[in-house]
Amino acid sequence: MKKVHNFYAGPSILPEFTYQETIKAIENFAGTGLSIMSISHRSKQFEATLNEATGLFKKLLNIPDGYSVLFLGGGASLQFAMIPFNLMIKKAMYLDTGTWSNKAIKEAKLFGDVEVISSKDKNYSYVPKGFSIPSDADYFHFTSNNTIAGTEIKHDFDSPIPMIADMSSDIFSRPVDVSKYAMIYGGAQKNLGPAGVTFVIIKDDILGKTDRKIPTMLNYQIHIDKGSMFNTPPAMNIFATLQTLKWIDQQGGVEVMQKMNIEKAQILYDAIDNSKLFVVKVDNVEDRSLMNITFVMKEEYKNLEADFLAFASEKGMLGVKGHRSVGGFRASTYNALPKESVIALVETMKEFEKSI
Amino acid sequence: MKKVHNFYAGPSILPEFTYQETIKAIENFAGTGLSIMSISHRSKQFEATLNEATGLFKKLLNIPDGYSVLFLGGGASLQFAMIPFNLMIKKAMYLDTGTWSNKAIKEAKLFGDVEVISSKDKNYSYVPKGFSIPSDADYFHFTSNNTIAGTEIKHDFDSPIPMIADMSSDIFSRPVDVSKYAMIYGGAQKNLGPAGVTFVIIKDDILGKTDRKIPTMLNYQIHIDKGSMFNTPPAMNIFATLQTLKWIDQQGGVEVMQKMNIEKAQILYDAIDNSKLFVVKVDNVEDRSLMNITFVMKEEYKNLEADFLAFASEKGMLGVKGHRSVGGFRASTYNALPKESVIALVETMKEFEKSI
Repeated sequence: MKKVHNFYAGPSILPEFTYQETIKAIENFAGTGLSIMSISHRSKQFEATLNEATGLFKKLLNIPDGYSVLFLGGGASLQFAMIPFNLMIKKAMYLDTGTWSNKAIKEAKLFGDVEVISSKDKNYSYVPKGFSIPSDADYFHFTSNNTIAGTEIKHDFDSPIPMIADMSSDIFSRPVDVSKYAMIYGGAQKNLGPAGVTFVIIKDDILGKTDRKIPTMLNYQIHIDKGSMFNTPPAMNIFATLQTLKWIDQQGGVEVMQKMNIEKAQILYDAIDNSKLFVVKVDNVEDRSLMNITFVMKEEYKNLEADFLAFASEKGMLGVKGHRSVGGFRASTYNALPKESVIALVETMKEFEKSI
Repeated sequence: MKKVHNFYAGPSILPEFTYQETIKAIENFAGTGLSIMSISHRSKQFEATLNEATGLFKKLLNIPDGYSVLFLGGGASLQFAMIPFNLMIKKAMYLDTGTWSNKAIKEAKLFGDVEVISSKDKNYSYVPKGFSIPSDADYFHFTSNNTIAGTEIKHDFDSPIPMIADMSSDIFSRPVDVSKYAMIYGGAQKNLGPAGVTFVIIKDDILGKTDRKIPTMLNYQIHIDKGSMFNTPPAMNIFATLQTLKWIDQQGGVEVMQKMNIEKAQILYDAIDNSKLFVVKVDNVEDRSLMNITFVMKEEYKNLEADFLAFASEKGMLGVKGHRSVGGFRASTYNALPKESVIALVETMKEFEKSI
């Protein structure tokens, strides 16, 4: 079979270790003789898996006491509604850096006033700076990485009010000072595991401040009290996520991930910056994502975009097409993407450039 | 390795075909060279999987035109809230046949009046009969199979108002006249696939009757319009579910499942009814579940319950312990459980009976 390179933005590449351990657990989970698909979530073996995943999550991100880690179903999109349901009293502030922030804002508006700082004026090609966070809002929400535009906020803001971040697409790609946050959440399907499980890191003392009637499944307090087992959790997805956490740990943790991600991104951004054909979409170097590298053909070569996609695909570069809402190209360089894949893509770009 | 038999109530046994096909797709999904965990849900290969799953679901249950089939995250427990969120105007009627009905009722009460007919008076050991469904309620909801008490409603009610059933634990175990229902839903983790995906069969014309503001992820109309792809669906879980649907189809469909389930249940109920030690918990034969067979030791042998559990476990009978809220024993005999496992359990019971 032809060697392929996986640049999909999500679901996206995971470590080979995650695939192989999940396969073993489908055959025989924890020596039970049963499949991870088919064992009670109340079995002591699955409870051990869940505990291990929670513990390793806390260890790798250096999460302080007073926070809970939850594994829930429904996707980050469900969190967009759960956050205001649980935390909005009157007003919240949202940073709008693209499609995903926008979706979160839409849900928040069902529950109260939303103050928005946006970079929509320039098609989300930069991250707003120098804004102030109002101290009378209930919380401040931002999306750390914008998979579509290719921008990333790679630092932790200082916020006078509870700060919440959607880190679906860059969690575990670098160290994070969790103590600065009230909540960090995201879908697993980029740096963690197969789609179908959502992580939530939540500071226990931020809850209980609204008297809104919250449906049980949308109530963070219930999930904390039940240790992610209020209902049947997505067990196989959590198992696979644990394997990725183990792999990150084996590699040396998030500092090592960060180093590798900077190196991979540098190789690709350098190649684009030095290319005759291609140009990066995000101007400010500091705003450029280390996870989703977006680029286009320069104006004079625009007519070659389809040709390049076909050429890249022929060379085994999969998922390089930009999001359908913006076009162009996108190479996602998540934790598990090997440097070799980035180098192969750069070679492909050079080869194409020579061929025209 | 010792041969084991999987009697867990859920997550529970699935066909070997489902395990093996999922393993193959983790290695190489649809010839892409990528894992089913790691390919975009927007790829044509995954879209084909989703379409095939939806189509086969409709074929196997003979679902008429005018219905949509959705695959969502969040579990059946999230549906408990979504149903009244979308469909309650003023009042609904719920049949209370156990823990799961109760949880659904609790959520409905957040949205309007709930009229309840219950069998709680006798610890849910029977299914209420002879009740009438009020024609002025917005909908009538029931849980077809009660995994904890071991009762099952094995027929389709005639309802003057939209009828909704939670069939988490007996979907695809028998033919259902879908045309009698406004909605049928359930978690996958009994007869379909790994935990983490929820199916919803919904009649398109029942929506749009409330002016309640519904968060996007909780809005059925959104999921219908987007074909279960409003957000990233639990792709691997849906893939595995499709394999189980294929297996059901290969076996001959739901009529064959029903025949096999009746046969398996008969073997076990007969053994219990003819035993010196054990007694079935559900008196009315017509109310006895074909999916979860619950039984206890007769009063005079109560002290032997722990001994029997240890003995059964030693013989490789896993998951035979009754739900923690009721005790006793429970053998779940879902579609994928082979008759051989039921026979092995009966032999174990007889052997224990001889040994005392």
